[in-house]
Amino acid sequence: MTSQPHPPDRSRLELLLVSNSTMHGGGYLEHCANEISDFLGDMRRVMFVPYALADHDAYERKARPAFEALGYELRSAHTYDDPRAALDDHDAVFIGGGNTFRLLAQLEATGLLDAVRARALAGMPYMGSSAGTNVATLSICTTNDMPIVQPRSFDGLQLVPFQINPHYLDPNPGSKHMGETREERILQFHEERDSPVLGLREGCMLRVRGSSMQLRGTTAARLMRRDAAAKEYTPPADLSFLLET
Amino acid sequence: MTSQPHPPDRSRLELLLVSNSTMHGGGYLEHCANEISDFLGDMRRVMFVPYALADHDAYERKARPAFEALGYELRSAHTYDDPRAALDDHDAVFIGGGNTFRLLAQLEATGLLDAVRARALAGMPYMGSSAGTNVATLSICTTNDMPIVQPRSFDGLQLVPFQINPHYLDPNPGSKHMGETREERILQFHEERDSPVLGLREGCMLRVRGSSMQLRGTTAARLMRRDAAAKEYTPPADLSFLLET
Repeated sequence: MTSQPHPPDRSRLELLLVSNSTMHGGGYLEHCANEISDFLGDMRRVMFVPYALADHDAYERKARPAFEALGYELRSAHTYDDPRAALDDHDAVFIGGGNTFRLLAQLEATGLLDAVRARALAGMPYMGSSAGTNVATLSICTTNDMPIVQPRSFDGLQLVPFQINPHYLDPNPGSKHMGETREERILQFHEERDSPVLGLREGCMLRVRGSSMQLRGTTAARLMRRDAAAKEYTPPADLSFLLET
Repeated sequence: MTSQPHPPDRSRLELLLVSNSTMHGGGYLEHCANEISDFLGDMRRVMFVPYALADHDAYERKARPAFEALGYELRSAHTYDDPRAALDDHDAVFIGGGNTFRLLAQLEATGLLDAVRARALAGMPYMGSSAGTNVATLSICTTNDMPIVQPRSFDGLQLVPFQINPHYLDPNPGSKHMGETREERILQFHEERDSPVLGLREGCMLRVRGSSMQLRGTTAARLMRRDAAAKEYTPPADLSFLLET
């Protein structure tokens, strides 16, 4: 984190950050298929990063058809001896969901954390879903996942200068469960750090192009800031202001 | 972790590990008040560890009446210049709930992690609730909390040789939310590590005395092991077998 320029030049960023891979009752990436086509355009070769799940082969078998149906080739990072070098043979990168701690630890171990960051800042389209959306932000400090693996640091790719909480969940008014609600957990985050947190409900996503950021999809997002009332945004909405550091 | 004897001598342990501080509709620690009296007996001075919440003064004001009503003095660690040394002036320790990452980081920073561990292994009664129960185990790798602070290590006090998931929650069959269920998250833990995980539903607790461990309270616990079917235990139940390393 300290070794990065402050702020980095984000003018060439092309990001698609999806809250969730699958909607209830739908197929894998089905709810964002049109967005993926629009985002990747005439790109061809997509590198898939499967590290958030344990079974990389199975994950590649799941992800490939969703991209092939849209006309893209997909190959998983784990099939290369040197995934960092292999990144250069691809036009775009997609980091899939799963456990965010496991994902980040593996991005660190493979050197992909730095390599993907450099390529994304240089303009390579980056798509993330769930954990893959989380790691694109300042840190994984607003993940919902269990800390099953310890990464060296909680710092993310820092492609955007705020936090995301994927799968954002409203309190269930009928619940008798006393564990913290999602919003309470994010309030606790703001007791420690002051970065804005964007709660992306299942069904919505962010499209970033340089200094522009749009909220898309079918559900609203909730923006939580330290010491301020939460704000709701319904897509389509312009959230470019969040890119200003 | 590696500096600890394997296994430590647990013959003098006295633990009360509660899933949750408050039941829906009840008061703070009300559901386990009788257990606390039975556990602390004629002990007198309880050190409270408030670090899981941000406002230590407010947390002490909340915890003290619950113990005073039962005849115990309670004073919070944060009111001492040297909480480690102050531990020696107390008969028992209670670590309250909140954010587990914040708690663990503060236990590391104050030196209480080692001090509490040593005292508990020497026989000082240790009570934990929620996050305070989590840190008593092998690691915090099965917490539900958001990683808002980065501890040096995920290792816990390792007073018991297994993992606990407090506030264990059954899947909601009517839910359309696609985020992982609690059980799915624990399955992911078992893809990485092989320690047993005991899911303590709100309302149940563990009482450990040397090599004996009893499940108490009003709700069942779910024991999950790698590559094995989950097992349910209804209190009162003898779970001493989980203490065998």
